[in-house]
Amino acid sequence: MNDIHRVCVRFHSAIEMIGTRWTGAILRAIFTGHHRYAEIKAAIPGLSDTMLAARLRSLESDGLVVREVSEGPPVQVQYKLSEKALDLAPVLDSVVEWAHKWIPLPDDAKRS
Amino acid sequence: MNDIHRVCVRFHSAIEMIGTRWTGAILRAIFTGHHRYAEIKAAIPGLSDTMLAARLRSLESDGLVVREVSEGPPVQVQYKLSEKALDLAPVLDSVVEWAHKWIPLPDDAKRS
Repeated sequence: MNDIHRVCVRFHSAIEMIGTRWTGAILRAIFTGHHRYAEIKAAIPGLSDTMLAARLRSLESDGLVVREVSEGPPVQVQYKLSEKALDLAPVLDSVVEWAHKWIPLPDDAKRS
Repeated sequence: MNDIHRVCVRFHSAIEMIGTRWTGAILRAIFTGHHRYAEIKAAIPGLSDTMLAARLRSLESDGLVVREVSEGPPVQVQYKLSEKALDLAPVLDSVVEWAHKWIPLPDDAKRS
């Protein structure tokens, strides 16, 4: 097995960067127009403040999210997608398409 | 913010299912023709036996991987992709494309 074709390390980094718990959902929330902290949090049930703050910092350090502070008053902070993140649109769209075909709707979502 | 558009729970489940640590790499290894345990392990540097066995069990229970045992001797076990997993091809392909554009090659890969 010396000639085995290894899985690309860049693919491996990428899939885990966007698949880290909560990260994909946060990216999707920003993609769908939620740019303020409270909006992102409201769009993702179950996401704690600690986790959202940590993930936004990771997304910033990975170069996917840019934190923009507007001059006040009142000062407003918005989280915008970088060009690198905007290029993820085909990835997220294909996950949405796959999920709608293959992942069943949870029972509590059916009731609401 | 009562009318906030929530992130789809099916999208959220899907992105974390394929983005769980090692899972994307294992799927990619099987997609690229590695069907035997030792081949998958060899294709993913750093992946331990314990983790590979656990992830293959999760992939089976998620309906993505089918474990096929051929009649022997010698008995051979192969891991094949289900139709559900084969439908992930556009997702994985778009991640590969994005990664090759945006994720730098690590220094040790450049040297080898």
